Amino acid sequence: MSTRLCILDTLAHAKPVATTLRTTPARATNRTIRLFSSTATTAAHRALVFRQSGALNEVLSAQTFRALPPPGPGLVNVRVRLAPVNPSDVNVVEGVYPNKPKPETLPPLESNGLVQPSSASAGDGVGQEVYVPGNEGVAEVTAVGEGVSGLNVGDWVVFAKAQPGTWASARQVGERDVIRVDKDAGEVTAATLSVNPPTALCMLREFVQLKEGDWVVQNGANSAVGQLVIQIAARRGIRTLNFVRSRAAKDHDALVQRLGALGATHTHTYDELSDRAFVSRLKALTSSNPPRLLLNCVSGPQTTAMLRVLGPDAQLVSYGAMSKQPLALPTGLHIFRGLVARGFWMSRWYGTHDRAEREALLREVVAMKLTEPGHRIVDVEGAWSDEEAGRRVREALGADGRGGRGEKVLLRIQDPVL
Amino acid sequence: MSTRLCILDTLAHAKPVATTLRTTPARATNRTIRLFSSTATTAAHRALVFRQSGALNEVLSAQTFRALPPPGPGLVNVRVRLAPVNPSDVNVVEGVYPNKPKPETLPPLESNGLVQPSSASAGDGVGQEVYVPGNEGVAEVTAVGEGVSGLNVGDWVVFAKAQPGTWASARQVGERDVIRVDKDAGEVTAATLSVNPPTALCMLREFVQLKEGDWVVQNGANSAVGQLVIQIAARRGIRTLNFVRSRAAKDHDALVQRLGALGATHTHTYDELSDRAFVSRLKALTSSNPPRLLLNCVSGPQTTAMLRVLGPDAQLVSYGAMSKQPLALPTGLHIFRGLVARGFWMSRWYGTHDRAEREALLREVVAMKLTEPGHRIVDVEGAWSDEEAGRRVREALGADGRGGRGEKVLLRIQDPVL
Repeated sequence: MSTRLCILDTLAHAKPVATTLRTTPARATNRTIRLFSSTATTAAHRALVFRQSGALNEVLSAQTFRALPPPGPGLVNVRVRLAPVNPSDVNVVEGVYPNKPKPETLPPLESNGLVQPSSASAGDGVGQEVYVPGNEGVAEVTAVGEGVSGLNVGDWVVFAKAQPGTWASARQVGERDVIRVDKDAGEVTAATLSVNPPTALCMLREFVQLKEGDWVVQNGANSAVGQLVIQIAARRGIRTLNFVRSRAAKDHDALVQRLGALGATHTHTYDELSDRAFVSRLKALTSSNPPRLLLNCVSGPQTTAMLRVLGPDAQLVSYGAMSKQPLALPTGLHIFRGLVARGFWMSRWYGTHDRAEREALLREVVAMKLTEPGHRIVDVEGAWSDEEAGRRVREALGADGRGGRGEKVLLRIQDPVL
Repeated sequence: MSTRLCILDTLAHAKPVATTLRTTPARATNRTIRLFSSTATTAAHRALVFRQSGALNEVLSAQTFRALPPPGPGLVNVRVRLAPVNPSDVNVVEGVYPNKPKPETLPPLESNGLVQPSSASAGDGVGQEVYVPGNEGVAEVTAVGEGVSGLNVGDWVVFAKAQPGTWASARQVGERDVIRVDKDAGEVTAATLSVNPPTALCMLREFVQLKEGDWVVQNGANSAVGQLVIQIAARRGIRTLNFVRSRAAKDHDALVQRLGALGATHTHTYDELSDRAFVSRLKALTSSNPPRLLLNCVSGPQTTAMLRVLGPDAQLVSYGAMSKQPLALPTGLHIFRGLVARGFWMSRWYGTHDRAEREALLREVVAMKLTEPGHRIVDVEGAWSDEEAGRRVREALGADGRGGRGEKVLLRIQDPVL
């Protein structure tokens, strides 16, 4: 018990685990792994789970799982340090996202005796399938399996696979499903590094060759990705035409100012697009470099209206559909104006690029030192029972994953103290 | 007068004009051209025109124009032999097509005296702008301007430019706006060669690399392009999943049989797509080669329903929107299934490919010896007045451009006899 706590304590202070436990590729023998795992099995780990889809603050609970087994060939065990609650995670739990985490089966009570569920209700539904949400986060490698090269115990990694289930204290993942990241990035930046910043960066360069002075049009400009697009574009001298929802004049002015401070060239509301004179002014404004890239995370009629400001041969790249409405495109824009509509999905990008490319992309993002998202950290203490942990998390997240407070929540889930 | 009639007669029999009038690049001196043009100015030409948009059988009239001037540098004069009435032409006249022919100004009455409008009403609206429809046709070169190489008097050409105004007896066009075509193609095939067959061919190979056994899905399978897609695909061992509107059982069976005879693998109705079991069967049928190409000339909800049968990373290529409704795409298909939506426009293809490529494409289409579209030829006699010619054309075409008779109409417009 004291050994486990000692390790936990070490991890909690973000130092690498003791040198004797470190596994390097050269020393990744079965013996080394067995040595480590015999120590590790004294621990349990905890995850947030849902059984049925629903509102975050209704269906989420905390669950203690027995310790991870030693990693098999090609696998690594990681301790999750920090994991964000993203809007897409809320959708996953609601059941309105196309992807769902792989189901996991609750451990039987008659386990090997080393681990016992810590809360009174943990035995409920033993053998039942549960889902662990969480698509992003930063973790530390605690053990590597046979044949794993390029990852060492103590390395920080982020997740490059859809739905790895990061709302947990520990995970076992394939070595290809994580990407090593420099600790200099800092914990918050690293935890929010793998999805939004590379999404913004890739969308700005993979579809249209943009040069200084060119315009990019985007909706949902106030979203996390939207703000990153503004920052990255501004650093490259690319001008952004940003669209947001209408709000009270004071709030709108404050938002325009905030996006402007990040580098936004112009910020307007979708409602303005119904004014022909306004659209004509935008066209005149962009006439020397008609926009060829529209980044869409909204869809619905407001996005159709935005098509008017595009030049010929434009690309409409979708990465979300916050309006929950389809994208309605006048066919003539495809035929006569060369419009191409496509999507971008970071998980897919990771799946089609090798380790070196993936690490290079994240190094590039870290080097940009982009503004960290406004956030607060929600701790899930090891001393809490599953019941208490679940209740506190539901309160902290609310239905929107932000507890109605507008800042991004980052979860720090500790192993349960048994 | 007799000279003009003699030339007309010669042209009517599809022989090249007399050798003394032939202009080759080497002999394309001003003198040669002047010699020819002094002969040509004794003739007038006629075109079908509209002043305001509207139904074909309401706004179309015939109009005599003075003879074409000699072609300037880079220009050629052609006599149009046969020009089809395509659905897009009907849309152009209705004013619901994005392209419109360039306006032409009616000749003043006080012309050089060689040409007089032949009908009593031709003087109306002198100086007023009119539009000559017609996007396709086969024509014979009657004179070439200075610097024109690769085109000789007597050559057959088709049009490679949007809205050249082929519903006329003669046109003056840029040498780049026409493509030489082999006379062996035959007049009807040549007149309908430049738009539909290369559209079908290009769409089948420019976006997705298809191999034998692959599936292509298309709507409007009964359209001219649809039938060409079926034929071209069948010759390459590519299977087609064809969709058409619901109709009476007997008519549907006849259509399925007719498309089957052209090479269609399966033909279904849009309505069947609302049956989940049917969609599952289609998916099972195509599971070894999930369709990656959907050719769309319909748009609207029936096209959205068709997306269900596509495999991942599919391309939705639009070349029409007969439903006159937009294309509604679930954003998730772009993001998570890699769907790319784009358009294809033959005029654009011609504009971005050089003479050799354009001629090669048409040679390839001619060599395929595709089934000629069902058609009837409507003659516009030189002896008729503009008034009579207009009336007869309106009757023959009706509102749908086919006089309600279902066959494609080809116009053979003769120079007016003055």
